[in-house]
Amino acid sequence: MSDYSLGEKLKVTIFGQSHAPAIGCVIEGYPAGRAIDWAAVSAFMARRAPGQNAWSTPRKEADAPDILSGLNDQGLTCGAPIAAVIHNQNTRSGDYEHLRRVPRPGHADYAARLKYGDAFDVRGGGQFSARLTAPLCLAGALALQYLNDQGVQIAAHIAAIGGIEDAMPDPVHPVLPLYAPGTFPVIDAAQGEKMKVAIEKARQSGDSVGGVVRCLVTGLPGGLGGPLFGGVEGKIAQAIFGIPAVKGVAFGEGFGAASLRGSDNNDAYCIENGAVRTITNHAGGILGGITTGMPLYFTAAFKPTPSIARAQQSVNLETMEKTELTIQGRHDPCVVPRAVPVVEAVTALVLMDLILQGA
Amino acid sequence: MSDYSLGEKLKVTIFGQSHAPAIGCVIEGYPAGRAIDWAAVSAFMARRAPGQNAWSTPRKEADAPDILSGLNDQGLTCGAPIAAVIHNQNTRSGDYEHLRRVPRPGHADYAARLKYGDAFDVRGGGQFSARLTAPLCLAGALALQYLNDQGVQIAAHIAAIGGIEDAMPDPVHPVLPLYAPGTFPVIDAAQGEKMKVAIEKARQSGDSVGGVVRCLVTGLPGGLGGPLFGGVEGKIAQAIFGIPAVKGVAFGEGFGAASLRGSDNNDAYCIENGAVRTITNHAGGILGGITTGMPLYFTAAFKPTPSIARAQQSVNLETMEKTELTIQGRHDPCVVPRAVPVVEAVTALVLMDLILQGA
Amino acid sequence: MSDYSLGEKLKVTIFGQSHAPAIGCVIEGYPAGRAIDWAAVSAFMARRAPGQNAWSTPRKEADAPDILSGLNDQGLTCGAPIAAVIHNQNTRSGDYEHLRRVPRPGHADYAARLKYGDAFDVRGGGQFSARLTAPLCLAGALALQYLNDQGVQIAAHIAAIGGIEDAMPDPVHPVLPLYAPGTFPVIDAAQGEKMKVAIEKARQSGDSVGGVVRCLVTGLPGGLGGPLFGGVEGKIAQAIFGIPAVKGVAFGEGFGAASLRGSDNNDAYCIENGAVRTITNHAGGILGGITTGMPLYFTAAFKPTPSIARAQQSVNLETMEKTELTIQGRHDPCVVPRAVPVVEAVTALVLMDLILQGA
Amino acid sequence: MSDYSLGEKLKVTIFGQSHAPAIGCVIEGYPAGRAIDWAAVSAFMARRAPGQNAWSTPRKEADAPDILSGLNDQGLTCGAPIAAVIHNQNTRSGDYEHLRRVPRPGHADYAARLKYGDAFDVRGGGQFSARLTAPLCLAGALALQYLNDQGVQIAAHIAAIGGIEDAMPDPVHPVLPLYAPGTFPVIDAAQGEKMKVAIEKARQSGDSVGGVVRCLVTGLPGGLGGPLFGGVEGKIAQAIFGIPAVKGVAFGEGFGAASLRGSDNNDAYCIENGAVRTITNHAGGILGGITTGMPLYFTAAFKPTPSIARAQQSVNLETMEKTELTIQGRHDPCVVPRAVPVVEAVTALVLMDLILQGA
Repeated sequence: MSDYSLGEKLKVTIFGQSHAPAIGCVIEGYPAGRAIDWAAVSAFMARRAPGQNAWSTPRKEADAPDILSGLNDQGLTCGAPIAAVIHNQNTRSGDYEHLRRVPRPGHADYAARLKYGDAFDVRGGGQFSARLTAPLCLAGALALQYLNDQGVQIAAHIAAIGGIEDAMPDPVHPVLPLYAPGTFPVIDAAQGEKMKVAIEKARQSGDSVGGVVRCLVTGLPGGLGGPLFGGVEGKIAQAIFGIPAVKGVAFGEGFGAASLRGSDNNDAYCIENGAVRTITNHAGGILGGITTGMPLYFTAAFKPTPSIARAQQSVNLETMEKTELTIQGRHDPCVVPRAVPVVEAVTALVLMDLILQGA
Repeated sequence: MSDYSLGEKLKVTIFGQSHAPAIGCVIEGYPAGRAIDWAAVSAFMARRAPGQNAWSTPRKEADAPDILSGLNDQGLTCGAPIAAVIHNQNTRSGDYEHLRRVPRPGHADYAARLKYGDAFDVRGGGQFSARLTAPLCLAGALALQYLNDQGVQIAAHIAAIGGIEDAMPDPVHPVLPLYAPGTFPVIDAAQGEKMKVAIEKARQSGDSVGGVVRCLVTGLPGGLGGPLFGGVEGKIAQAIFGIPAVKGVAFGEGFGAASLRGSDNNDAYCIENGAVRTITNHAGGILGGITTGMPLYFTAAFKPTPSIARAQQSVNLETMEKTELTIQGRHDPCVVPRAVPVVEAVTALVLMDLILQGA
Repeated sequence: MSDYSLGEKLKVTIFGQSHAPAIGCVIEGYPAGRAIDWAAVSAFMARRAPGQNAWSTPRKEADAPDILSGLNDQGLTCGAPIAAVIHNQNTRSGDYEHLRRVPRPGHADYAARLKYGDAFDVRGGGQFSARLTAPLCLAGALALQYLNDQGVQIAAHIAAIGGIEDAMPDPVHPVLPLYAPGTFPVIDAAQGEKMKVAIEKARQSGDSVGGVVRCLVTGLPGGLGGPLFGGVEGKIAQAIFGIPAVKGVAFGEGFGAASLRGSDNNDAYCIENGAVRTITNHAGGILGGITTGMPLYFTAAFKPTPSIARAQQSVNLETMEKTELTIQGRHDPCVVPRAVPVVEAVTALVLMDLILQGA
Repeated sequence: MSDYSLGEKLKVTIFGQSHAPAIGCVIEGYPAGRAIDWAAVSAFMARRAPGQNAWSTPRKEADAPDILSGLNDQGLTCGAPIAAVIHNQNTRSGDYEHLRRVPRPGHADYAARLKYGDAFDVRGGGQFSARLTAPLCLAGALALQYLNDQGVQIAAHIAAIGGIEDAMPDPVHPVLPLYAPGTFPVIDAAQGEKMKVAIEKARQSGDSVGGVVRCLVTGLPGGLGGPLFGGVEGKIAQAIFGIPAVKGVAFGEGFGAASLRGSDNNDAYCIENGAVRTITNHAGGILGGITTGMPLYFTAAFKPTPSIARAQQSVNLETMEKTELTIQGRHDPCVVPRAVPVVEAVTALVLMDLILQGA
């Protein structure tokens, strides 16, 4: 029933608003006795950090978290919840009175008012701000370390921005990582350059552009998930839709499978190095909601960020009259590059939870 | 953690296997004091029933459920869980030994063995059978009656089969129902005829074909759902992925939004008959995970059913050798028409749960 | 949020009303591949069955359940939910109109109306009937078979009826079973005879009498449970309070510990056969909410059954006037003997769930 | 599944260890738009604060929490989770190596090691420390403010310490508050003086003493809770057992009811000021797991704190040899007075959750 929690045995609870004193998370169920590589956590978080090229070398991270609990006197995880706090800075709230009255198209402003009433913290989008993906990345980074030790690798890339598509990785024998650390997160660098141009064009025209992130997972054990509402697809989708701006999630061939025939979409079984595998992987590693041991992959569609510089039509909720709205400030014309690690993080949290559940 | 349960305040638990004595469901949280229109339940269930043209007049339903509990002496719901049982018939199990050894491509057989071991009830696909959507439809029919009384209407149609697309309903002012009762569930009958041809062609070539179902909801109150993991998109997606064969779920413009610019995708606000609405509805009625009061709509991609008559390559799990598999029997070459009411049912269950939660 | 479900990984959902067509349960998460000893299940259920001396030799059980799902073609559990139905018989509902208007003191009648309104199924107490402990015993019997195979034994006895106390078993090295199968469930048969006299006296005076059940568990692994709200005490208590008529639950010394000094109540550690144990067991096998590996024990207080033959004062809810109520029929003057297996069953369900959770 | 979370619609997650940088909580589901009386929160927290007479005038609270999120720019609750942090001070951890090897009798040390292994944060008892009841009190104080506005009052008192009993409040028409603010939390001050003497005697002999807390709730609406596992008794008990040192919970007559006859224990209905009430209140305001509208009351048994100055027998877990342990430092010889507000807080959290659930 909680809006802010993800998972059952590994459970992450997110808190904070864009302009509250802090954002953060509480991670329950992380196994005791583990040493965390905090530099790796920091590097992972830097991939989504704002105020930089997302693909440049990680710089000093302003979002360094305070770890308030969960570690013993030797710095090992101790079984108690890991509480992490990231203090908000530069949160000059300015004049938000206008936004209280005139909701921004495509933003959560109006919907949030319907749910919370006038007391909704409209500053910076409140708890709907993409800033809340920072603690998600922190938690996800811890999950990734655990998964890596189990032989599970997770890597996402930009599948498309504004209709410009990256190369499709081999879904049967993917080679991870998909790109060099610190570079623009695509497989085909030439396509990546075109994407950057598309982003820049959108920026120059006071607009924004959407895209698609594809995420691959290798080394996952078979047998995770279950039928009906216990399916891995449903669990991942529910979590991925928790990332702001996601409007679609699809596994394997996804919507493309709807146009295929069964004889094209079925993945024939084979024996490879003594193990049961499939020759193709249209299923994306999941059948009947359960992992098959093949690479898992899915795509997530991100809508163009609604914060655009152009004047837009809206209404004044007090006078109930039509009005025009121009959003001030500098906006990110495309969230997709920064969303890549967020998708990896959320995927890691779901899969680690499933592994801990033994299900 | 339950694979078989959906919902929190309205909770449905599904049980049964394809060849067990029965399938059924337990519905908790349905409000007390309501008279159920059982003829309407039966008519709704008939829309997904096998052994008929899914779009023909409902005939005497063999799947008539026994209601074991939840009604008082006057036949009104009494607040106790409603347990319904549908007895399985014609479950001559024949020789399933072969399937125990040789998993069918695209089916859950192999994945289920990884999870449950040899004791998995391989007959008819066990609990992975689409037959378990019958009790889902029963529960969904009850939810639809409740929602209708609240002014909420739900209608799905076949958006596409094998690449042949139905007309797109108006997402701002949709007119429900989308088609006449008992007809093929499309808006554009001519396109529907082409779909039927495509299905028949697939059948004749011993193959199957996938498709897309689009679901619309009108009359939904704004303010349902929440940020992050409480989002309506995530809750609906998690449930819809519980329907066998679903591989993608997308809201509003969905994956199309990834190619749009913000200025095209944002829905400008307006006042209509004194109420706040949006001029367009690319968002599909959800912003920030919360309903806006605009019509909600989404699409679900169904893969082609894996049961095809053609010989397929598989492996013998005992000998770990390559083998060829030919699946016997008469198979449904396209599950999409029968999936239309299942999508409506699952959507109804999720939305009624949200309304009962007051969230 | 569910009133009718218990557990997470092993989850039991109860349905039915006293006078509905049936009562039953759905058991999710029971491991696949197990052969159930149905005769043992039946014998266990007979211990709580009405219409007999609870302590006499089990006779042919009228409450034989139909198993609708969860078994494969060889009768082994297959991983699908186990649905079991017990059909209600002899449910002549008679004239319940009176009870609709005049609530019985000590019964759930009035409280149920506050929750469900007039549609509450007042016949036989609806879903508040102790009859719903029959499917709980069925589920518990399955859990006991699993636990026994893990070396865990559970045995309860009547600690007291009407103030007459049974002997206290050795909490450090208890010897199970506590009494011969089929006998009155006490350690000290002489005290048991006195209890029977007290029950008979209550019956003769048209009254009823309460009691206490004590439950012991041996062979339980240490490390189950957790701090705060994950404590084993809280989980068992929540479940035991689900048994009708329970008004108190206490672990180890329980309320007695409140009068002790720490030097008397602390259990000193010792080494016994190479294992860490405690010399005494005031803690009842739980410290910090976590099992220590010592025998777990607790007591549950049952109020006297409210169904008594004597005239009682009540009110007419329609006229809102004082009235006198005389409950017709033959009533069980003491539910405690029949509650003994129910306590064992519920305890087994909670502990098996904890073991499956690995927590 | 979470050890650290309580509640569903109002959900509190606790974090921290005794010697971690901080302890705290995240409160989800608290209604938006409310002004919190922080001075009242502070005064409530002071009632459980250590280092003072628990019954003396609240002094400057060292445990003043930082509120990191959940408030809007006007200080009103905004619907986002309220995260509160209490920084730990004076946490010189000293030499805990000894405790790692030699578990303290009656403490969670040994059980925690079984669950978490060697990495358990043994300093000050880690997450098992009663210090974690501070954030519980903070959350509970917020719940109390909400409940008070709904007309619900909660008050606990010391029912007994070391066998010395306080007066029993009238369970039918209790008069709240039970004692003057800032005084020893008993109804009968003379009995309170005897309790203080008992505590002082225990201290002087290097020992500790247990007790019982009784909690009363007035103004609660009828119809909360439900049958079986949804019962109010079970929900409160599960939560109260989450308080360290609680070993028993009983409602209304509790264990006393086990010695009564039905004719004595049943509460006859009457009409009072036009409302249905009962003449007596042996049920403690709950029948069939559902509130009746009568005052709710229960008792919780606290074992004597295991930290005593006397030498105790234990074992060295490394050498697996018998050893003697003397716990250094100054210990609270009786936690019961400070536990009184903790019981109120936890009760408030459970009841506010039930009210928000509308169940």
